[in-house]
Amino acid sequence: MDNARLRRVTARMKEAGLDQILVTATTSLFYLTGHWVEPHERMIALLLDAGGSAVLFGNEIFGLTSQPGLPFVAHKDGDDPVAQLAQAVKPGKLGIDKFWYSKFLIGLMIHRPDVVPVHGSDPVDVTRMTKDDQERAAMRHSSAMNDQVVAAAIAALRPGVRENELAALVNREFLARGADCEGTQLVCFGPNGADPHHSGDATVLKPGDSVIFDIFTPISRYWCDMTRTVFYQEVSDRQRQVYELVRRANEAAEAAARPGVPLSELDGIARKVITDGGFGPYFTHRLGHGCGIDCHEPPDVSGASDAVCAPGMVFSVEPGIYLPGEFGVRIEDLVMVTEDGCEVLNKYPKELQVIG
Amino acid sequence: MDNARLRRVTARMKEAGLDQILVTATTSLFYLTGHWVEPHERMIALLLDAGGSAVLFGNEIFGLTSQPGLPFVAHKDGDDPVAQLAQAVKPGKLGIDKFWYSKFLIGLMIHRPDVVPVHGSDPVDVTRMTKDDQERAAMRHSSAMNDQVVAAAIAALRPGVRENELAALVNREFLARGADCEGTQLVCFGPNGADPHHSGDATVLKPGDSVIFDIFTPISRYWCDMTRTVFYQEVSDRQRQVYELVRRANEAAEAAARPGVPLSELDGIARKVITDGGFGPYFTHRLGHGCGIDCHEPPDVSGASDAVCAPGMVFSVEPGIYLPGEFGVRIEDLVMVTEDGCEVLNKYPKELQVIG
Repeated sequence: MDNARLRRVTARMKEAGLDQILVTATTSLFYLTGHWVEPHERMIALLLDAGGSAVLFGNEIFGLTSQPGLPFVAHKDGDDPVAQLAQAVKPGKLGIDKFWYSKFLIGLMIHRPDVVPVHGSDPVDVTRMTKDDQERAAMRHSSAMNDQVVAAAIAALRPGVRENELAALVNREFLARGADCEGTQLVCFGPNGADPHHSGDATVLKPGDSVIFDIFTPISRYWCDMTRTVFYQEVSDRQRQVYELVRRANEAAEAAARPGVPLSELDGIARKVITDGGFGPYFTHRLGHGCGIDCHEPPDVSGASDAVCAPGMVFSVEPGIYLPGEFGVRIEDLVMVTEDGCEVLNKYPKELQVIG
Repeated sequence: MDNARLRRVTARMKEAGLDQILVTATTSLFYLTGHWVEPHERMIALLLDAGGSAVLFGNEIFGLTSQPGLPFVAHKDGDDPVAQLAQAVKPGKLGIDKFWYSKFLIGLMIHRPDVVPVHGSDPVDVTRMTKDDQERAAMRHSSAMNDQVVAAAIAALRPGVRENELAALVNREFLARGADCEGTQLVCFGPNGADPHHSGDATVLKPGDSVIFDIFTPISRYWCDMTRTVFYQEVSDRQRQVYELVRRANEAAEAAARPGVPLSELDGIARKVITDGGFGPYFTHRLGHGCGIDCHEPPDVSGASDAVCAPGMVFSVEPGIYLPGEFGVRIEDLVMVTEDGCEVLNKYPKELQVIG
């Protein structure tokens, strides 16, 4: 049990008037207990009391044991998975993790009609938004690996190469640097880049293509996530114009990030650069997302976000312009808010490159 | 909307005394509506009335539209996702799909304290257990492709090959035959095979290794899932003994499958063969699982299952023996219950093979 993190969470529970919460997300349990459990259809739940006591309930198949400050209560396949949990919760409000399966919540409500389930993820989610020292080191390491991998991917551009070959190469390079798993890497040539979520298929590289590498993986549980766009053999004036606009939008938002600045303002700064350049309607998504043990986690970095930059917050800054039938450009860094600005975790250069 | 399937579901709702249910699982929505939507953190829900009326609620980003018999009610990011749904449900019991996120259920309960959420997946899950003609054809096709892929994988055994190279080959062969996606293929050499869930790593093939291929993928949304075990260059008497025991267990259970036979009995038949052969403690998992639009779905095929064979039911028969530090053997087919027996969907031979 990470007691410093637990204290931050229980302080937020008190602020929110929550005397007890259930933490059930794999990533949040890892954050607090150090255990990584993917329960699939089985149940695991950490019952936290605002006073700081914690009990972990789960299937014996997870192989957990009681530890100092963290008793583990096991059930077996075939048992009612919430029966023991139902005996431990107190009457009244119980904060419930947002993605807990309804089958468990309904089971708990049947046992305990005196318990009132309420939304209960915020105390952990808000705590996780600002990274502690150990997490900052992990995020820096993952992004340093990402810089190396994007360099290897760009170096592999050659005549006849297919998007999915490069996506496979990115996965191999990540695995060689300690990635926890493979993933669907976004490699987009030419018009495919106009779809922000296109993933690498059998499309073959052609001269004049823009090439988007949006690559990401967890390394020792902490994600990196960056995007670079380069051009193959030639670049048109229109491609150059769009590229420079996206780069300026990315850099303007990063230059403005410091404690106290609303994330909605960063979205607005990047969007204004692109809108003033005449491509506003083609920047079709939010500026970014928080990143940590989940690739996408709070805070939201959009015009609708109510979050404000604070030291240790890590999020992506990823403006893009998508021209259907033509090409796309996106440039993404992870940034970490510091005491007086932000640290850009991705160091791979952003100057326009024509390869080959 | 598939009206024949809908009628089967509403009949089961009436049997269960459920006047209304919410269907939210991606696979169940596909089964009933033909729409494949992966909502991630967003909401989609099909409200079904036992009288047969159906309304679909979801985020506009899913790109759905109203169709005859199936109105679509859209919300946007930033809206309260359950507000419209809350207006449509009737007071009293409401069956809830088992994996619906608690954040939505709690939101619905806040809007509608007069609604009583109860477990509500069974009407759809039980209907899905027995496949209709269209589904039977899809399952046959997927397993026929699997037979081809396992043949290609076995043919690729050669000195120095690594497990993860073969896992990648299996994914490529599946994709070439229409697989919907790549997956984590289980390729296990020698002692790695003693872990039933080992997935392909950098282990290199050695003479005398048992080689387990447990390979599976969805093709046009319907899964195949089979396991074959072969031996590389040589086979010991002990390996041969274990292999033949597992093969007899597999074949005995398949020979017994016919309408009216409890699935727990099939598990018992296979387990008895292995126990009588002296390896009972090393058959450490259930005999199998239902398979369809989900790779693992009802019915359970274990000693604790209360399901009974019925025509159109598809499940795996996959006994195994796992000898820690030595090797493992597993043989798995998908079978489809017919009017008077079962059709084994996997045709790849099960005679002991020594390769190379």
